[in-house]
Amino acid sequence: MRLATIRTGSGPRAARVDGDELVLLTFADVGALIASGEDWAERAAAGTGPRVPLADADFAPLTPAPEKVFCVGLNYASHAAEADLPLPQHPTLFAKFGRSLIGANDDLAIPTASDKVDWEIELGVVIGRAARHVREEDALDHVAGYTIVNDVSMRDWQLRTSQFLAGKTFEASTPVGPFLVTPDEVDHARSLRMELSVDGRVRQSSATDDLVFSVPQIISYISTIITLAPGDLIATGTPAGVGHVADPPTYLTPGSTMSCTIDGLGTQSTRCVAALDTVAAV
Amino acid sequence: MRLATIRTGSGPRAARVDGDELVLLTFADVGALIASGEDWAERAAAGTGPRVPLADADFAPLTPAPEKVFCVGLNYASHAAEADLPLPQHPTLFAKFGRSLIGANDDLAIPTASDKVDWEIELGVVIGRAARHVREEDALDHVAGYTIVNDVSMRDWQLRTSQFLAGKTFEASTPVGPFLVTPDEVDHARSLRMELSVDGRVRQSSATDDLVFSVPQIISYISTIITLAPGDLIATGTPAGVGHVADPPTYLTPGSTMSCTIDGLGTQSTRCVAALDTVAAV
Repeated sequence: MRLATIRTGSGPRAARVDGDELVLLTFADVGALIASGEDWAERAAAGTGPRVPLADADFAPLTPAPEKVFCVGLNYASHAAEADLPLPQHPTLFAKFGRSLIGANDDLAIPTASDKVDWEIELGVVIGRAARHVREEDALDHVAGYTIVNDVSMRDWQLRTSQFLAGKTFEASTPVGPFLVTPDEVDHARSLRMELSVDGRVRQSSATDDLVFSVPQIISYISTIITLAPGDLIATGTPAGVGHVADPPTYLTPGSTMSCTIDGLGTQSTRCVAALDTVAAV
Repeated sequence: MRLATIRTGSGPRAARVDGDELVLLTFADVGALIASGEDWAERAAAGTGPRVPLADADFAPLTPAPEKVFCVGLNYASHAAEADLPLPQHPTLFAKFGRSLIGANDDLAIPTASDKVDWEIELGVVIGRAARHVREEDALDHVAGYTIVNDVSMRDWQLRTSQFLAGKTFEASTPVGPFLVTPDEVDHARSLRMELSVDGRVRQSSATDDLVFSVPQIISYISTIITLAPGDLIATGTPAGVGHVADPPTYLTPGSTMSCTIDGLGTQSTRCVAALDTVAAV
């Protein structure tokens, strides 16, 4: 099953893909659907409602307001090597806040405050059932499905102190979606090709089986710290090929267009535009 | 005005302090009150309802589910020095999630997974009005009030990777409250004495005028990154005296009791108890 959150004339709606159509469900978004109870998937599969052409879909953030967004840093050996950092012994966790999420094909406004805006294609995991002190071997039972996250990073802000958060949670900067794909459709995303290109040039090309810490390991680890709640999003890390360490360093500017594909999960297309913001403090 | 969120027989309720009583308001918590619109303070001041003795109050987390919790690291010169770290040029921002918050006098369950649980008294700022691209000179207009945060930190988890989040967001580990004190009562917390003691021994003793980055600077800075929403919580950093760098290093264990006071904001009393959790992954 593939689910999406789309914008309609009467606000955002969760929807189920049915062939080349979307069936609108009675939930405002996929996060609200998942939060509606453990049998959410049965309800989503059985739901009936108005139909709209998939080709016309205006994708909203898949889960617009997750209680938590966890990101994993340095989780591909190739990216740790290009960043000249050792592979961590434990998952490197940092946060984003929900306001940083945008839809899969939304424009990305390059903030006036940053001139080092970079890309990071990542496998996204959406939690389907609360997870606390969960063993690795049970962790996948807590997954609702998988999606694509582009962990767009303002490198100047990310690296000006020891803590990444400032550069990782800019308003409306992180495309997520287009679909939540349930685990049965993609064998729990164990081995999916992923590719990000900028203006037609392939920049990142890898596969999810190169993850250092696997999805079950990450879920079990986080669940030792805090309860993962239904709808929570985990961005599992990015492979080699980010712009910050390219030769020469390359960043997104107004006019750049990114394409992000993970096999089985779909494609994001993101156009960069100039922000209209006025900066008060840098 | 002093506000609190207290537990009642019919669930949590926002309340206003009136002498030695609390007046129960028609909001589930102080966060919901602040989110109810810009005239929340007038509504809180005028609200009538059942009264309960202040002495009997069972304080819940002041804002149990803020959209965002930002923390500032290394924001007292004395703490940066004891941690042997240089003073940052920019605020060092990291996150917590709402599930880490507990009430001002709640027991703190020492997690089985950590044997380096440490204290950090901090001035907490609660946002009252959305702030985006706000100048320093306007920033205080966006403050609802001030409170006490004990940014309890699992040092083993905080320092095992470069990113602090894992050690800062353990479930039910961060006392916040007891009160939201409005800015007029404490001159925007510009110069308040703060003191934390453990088992009767003073460990941290400082004042808010020692902050490296001031409250207006922090709000303006964060608002360049993302919108601060009503109810958001900012923990502004801790002064010298944490247990991790004491000689010998000293940590909280079941049986320890902390007392945290900021003049004008009240006192937290936190008893440490053994957790009953079973750890799946460390």
